[in-house]
Amino acid sequence: MTDPLSTPRPATCWVLGADGHPFGVQTLAMGVFSPPGGEPRVGVRVGDHVLDAGAAADLGRQAGLVGDGPDLAAAWLTPSLNAFLALGRPAWSIARRWLTEVLTDEVHRELAEPHLHRLEDVTLHLPVEVADYVDFYAAEHHATNVGRIFRPDSPALPAAWRHLPIGYHGRAGTVVVSGTDVVRPTGQRKGPADPAPVFGPSVRLDIEAELGFVVGGATGLGERVGVDRAGEHLFGVVLLNDWSARDIQAWEYVPLGPFLGKSFATSVSAWVTPLDALVGARVPLPAQDPEPLPYLRGEVSGLDLHLEVSLGDTVVSRPESRELYWSPEQMLAHLTVNGASVRPGDLFGSGTISGPGRDTVGSLLELTWNGTEPVTLADGTTRGFLEDGDVVTMTAWAAGPGGHGRVGLGEVTGRIRPALPSMY
Amino acid sequence: MTDPLSTPRPATCWVLGADGHPFGVQTLAMGVFSPPGGEPRVGVRVGDHVLDAGAAADLGRQAGLVGDGPDLAAAWLTPSLNAFLALGRPAWSIARRWLTEVLTDEVHRELAEPHLHRLEDVTLHLPVEVADYVDFYAAEHHATNVGRIFRPDSPALPAAWRHLPIGYHGRAGTVVVSGTDVVRPTGQRKGPADPAPVFGPSVRLDIEAELGFVVGGATGLGERVGVDRAGEHLFGVVLLNDWSARDIQAWEYVPLGPFLGKSFATSVSAWVTPLDALVGARVPLPAQDPEPLPYLRGEVSGLDLHLEVSLGDTVVSRPESRELYWSPEQMLAHLTVNGASVRPGDLFGSGTISGPGRDTVGSLLELTWNGTEPVTLADGTTRGFLEDGDVVTMTAWAAGPGGHGRVGLGEVTGRIRPALPSMY
Repeated sequence: MTDPLSTPRPATCWVLGADGHPFGVQTLAMGVFSPPGGEPRVGVRVGDHVLDAGAAADLGRQAGLVGDGPDLAAAWLTPSLNAFLALGRPAWSIARRWLTEVLTDEVHRELAEPHLHRLEDVTLHLPVEVADYVDFYAAEHHATNVGRIFRPDSPALPAAWRHLPIGYHGRAGTVVVSGTDVVRPTGQRKGPADPAPVFGPSVRLDIEAELGFVVGGATGLGERVGVDRAGEHLFGVVLLNDWSARDIQAWEYVPLGPFLGKSFATSVSAWVTPLDALVGARVPLPAQDPEPLPYLRGEVSGLDLHLEVSLGDTVVSRPESRELYWSPEQMLAHLTVNGASVRPGDLFGSGTISGPGRDTVGSLLELTWNGTEPVTLADGTTRGFLEDGDVVTMTAWAAGPGGHGRVGLGEVTGRIRPALPSMY
Repeated sequence: MTDPLSTPRPATCWVLGADGHPFGVQTLAMGVFSPPGGEPRVGVRVGDHVLDAGAAADLGRQAGLVGDGPDLAAAWLTPSLNAFLALGRPAWSIARRWLTEVLTDEVHRELAEPHLHRLEDVTLHLPVEVADYVDFYAAEHHATNVGRIFRPDSPALPAAWRHLPIGYHGRAGTVVVSGTDVVRPTGQRKGPADPAPVFGPSVRLDIEAELGFVVGGATGLGERVGVDRAGEHLFGVVLLNDWSARDIQAWEYVPLGPFLGKSFATSVSAWVTPLDALVGARVPLPAQDPEPLPYLRGEVSGLDLHLEVSLGDTVVSRPESRELYWSPEQMLAHLTVNGASVRPGDLFGSGTISGPGRDTVGSLLELTWNGTEPVTLADGTTRGFLEDGDVVTMTAWAAGPGGHGRVGLGEVTGRIRPALPSMY
């Protein structure tokens, strides 16, 4: 058996087209799919194929290839990753080693090949039944830009920003899988010059390019997950588009934070890339000054993922996740320092990833400076914010183990549908 | 068959002690219990007894007493109310009529009596697996008081407050049932005079007395629930204590709202009182000025529930829910006006219920004016905020149908345990 974390080059996979592919065996991204006419179940992406992981593990168990470890087949023959997430890190490691062996050793080909489906033949579903969804605000350029736009008379960066990862809870029930259409939300808005709020479809519909971290294991009420134990609970990463109606948000958010301006939809990629695949993408965090309080200290690092945000056919930005000021481990430690428990399927977003340049920001709010400097698309049209029919797609990759090849993140895409006819 | 909604007096119940009891058949509060040695299942409170609703319905079905309607036995023989909530209002009405008949007609006594348990013999559980939890801010005196204390240099009432029910998402995974101990949360705080934030157990641990509304049925993404349809999705009411660490909250909440200051625990009563039991408690809302936008208009009314908040043996406040500016139907219409979907098990809080007098406020923040005017308890000790070992209990009742008797809400109680030893 080979361990992908310690080999200098990825193992060779017997699945055609998997070697050198961002979703080769160095990645082993997991999600939920249904084969034609079949029920949703857990799958592992292998190049342009999907392995029915539970079916393969079931066969492997019958063949004596799976020992007395966790019952992976039972966890995977379910319509979400939650049962697998509940098993915790030791089981994730066992599963990763087993999948690597099955997909790289020709002797297992006979067992697994009947359970490979072509990606184009399957339907992808939301990978996780989201328990609680939290969104952080961890990119300094983004927080600064938003502060300058929304609160021009106050310091751009909130007072607590460098002391703790600022975050809030979002709506778990409206987290949707990539490819789901997004209906333009309707609501109240009121500009500073408007005498009273008006009601209608949002006219400042925006995107936010983020990483989403998928949590596994569980803790009890009153427990904490320290920075150095956070990795036990961090399974993987999705790309996340935190759709935002800026006009609704600006009017509603004082003093309890964003609500309807965000809760209409949050899109995530269908594939969860395990953090075990991203060990080669670890980079030092930006310098944290002042030094965080002790509960936020530890062996922390950032992630060097290269994002690309497209509006239709036009790449409008290339955010870099190494810009994030706080590490995912610090975010989880902060989230639980008050004793809040975590559940398998918890999801937290990094916050919009924005760098210093206009071509590295993660929202149209910043890219067009609140609509005042529209961006020109490849077809010659311009955008301040999103128009009906617009399709936004985010992709990302990281360097593979030992710097070889690429590790892929699932893309997240969505099309804007017109607002519902008003009932009023 | 009698209809409790149209009879001038509650029907007579054959369960000893149920007539005249706040949890008699005029109420039919529902929850989840386990009998000695048994698994959790849905129960109906009848006086000081609990009816194993699923077992009774199963027998009733076998006896031909339940027709071709929804499979109530299947929905009730589960460890949460969620399956029953998913059935929707028509099933709730059928269930209420059937339960009333079974509990008031002596001919059904033989069927049901073996499935009655004494309340003191059973264990009560969280009644609902909470899907999304939202907390509103709908009492004008509370919002004004908090504004004066937290933001003395700004207008007390946020600009949007009279135009929409301000709310935010809370942590669903830390909603706990009455009786659960609450560990004092630890976190960062920073007073205006502190040069830097400090870390430690909260020193301003507070309560918030609220109503919680339990949602049933489901809607799709992009749908709205209008004010006039909201009743189809509103099953019942719990008492809710939104424990709050004011020092943590004050430091963290700009600009994304409360997070760790609230997420460590939210307690709810074990019993959900159906809104069908509260038709006699409907009262006009406070005058809404300015008139709300059309999507918030309709046949709206408030609820006249009389709350009592005790700290240990001392009643410290008697909030009145008729103070709430927005109706539950308006809150749900607002929550979904942007197309956010709802799920069975969604829960939303009213926000802290405070009236104009010190003896009617729903938080210690207000009662002691941020700790500066401590309250004296019956044992002669004083409190600015909660101390370790303190027990807070909230109860409530409303007038019964036709003004006869009382309809009870479940109590919500919790004891403060000391903070965990610091890891740092």
